[in-house]
Amino acid sequence: MRILGIDPGSHITGYGVVDGEKGRLVHICDGSIVAGSKNPLTLRLAAIFNLIHKVIGEFKPDAVVIEEIFYAKNARSAIMLGHARGVAMLCGAQHGLPIFEYSPMKIKQSVVGYGNATKEQVQKMVKALLKMSAIPKADASDALAAAICHIHHTKMGGRK
Amino acid sequence: MRILGIDPGSHITGYGVVDGEKGRLVHICDGSIVAGSKNPLTLRLAAIFNLIHKVIGEFKPDAVVIEEIFYAKNARSAIMLGHARGVAMLCGAQHGLPIFEYSPMKIKQSVVGYGNATKEQVQKMVKALLKMSAIPKADASDALAAAICHIHHTKMGGRK
Repeated sequence: MRILGIDPGSHITGYGVVDGEKGRLVHICDGSIVAGSKNPLTLRLAAIFNLIHKVIGEFKPDAVVIEEIFYAKNARSAIMLGHARGVAMLCGAQHGLPIFEYSPMKIKQSVVGYGNATKEQVQKMVKALLKMSAIPKADASDALAAAICHIHHTKMGGRK
Repeated sequence: MRILGIDPGSHITGYGVVDGEKGRLVHICDGSIVAGSKNPLTLRLAAIFNLIHKVIGEFKPDAVVIEEIFYAKNARSAIMLGHARGVAMLCGAQHGLPIFEYSPMKIKQSVVGYGNATKEQVQKMVKALLKMSAIPKADASDALAAAICHIHHTKMGGRK
């Protein structure tokens, strides 16, 4: 199974593709897009959509995984985050892909072993689990962690 | 000028198309989609996107107008609202349409004459301004009101 993890944000959106076969995790790619806080919101949303559309077209994942979000600093940032997340989910849906959501706690639990892990701990574990040569950037790391979490929770990944 | 107003919501999304020519407002169409609170979020977002895509294709507006939102009951509903709003804005952007935003207060001010008007007052004024035979439903009314507000604020509409 090939999983695309997405960490959407109104300014930076991270993504990561991970293969899970017979209990083995393989890093395929990761990256992020800085949509630019000074660009109009519509341009930022179009940039996020286009990036995810391109990644799905190129790497053909079997499913999309995205972090569940139930909180934010304030209503304004929650709405802004929702914009980016909605566009990311729409893109997956338009490609006919199933979309899975996990809470941040469940993702950390699955990757690091406990739900209150720091961002740095997640980055280190993602690097180790995927045998990456360098620590992934925070946004890409969160996206890869979401993908790893789904593989861990799926029989097909061999690590239920 | 032909304006598409959108009132996005995670459960109900209203839309309305209004022509403004030489100071005259003409009602073209309105409606809403009930995305269904029991459907998965991705299906709801796809339904909203498809509706707006269809309306733009059929009525070919010159611009899209959408209410500015800076508040919500709580972070969760703000995020959910943001999803729908992001998808609506993306659809307009993909059609190459300019997207304008007005605060709820500015829209009410423009349509009713004062910024603290009730939903019912907005509905009555929208009916009167557009010479509709019946009171429009609340979600369609808000969308039509957004379109009217933009026409009022635009020289091309003849009513700056």
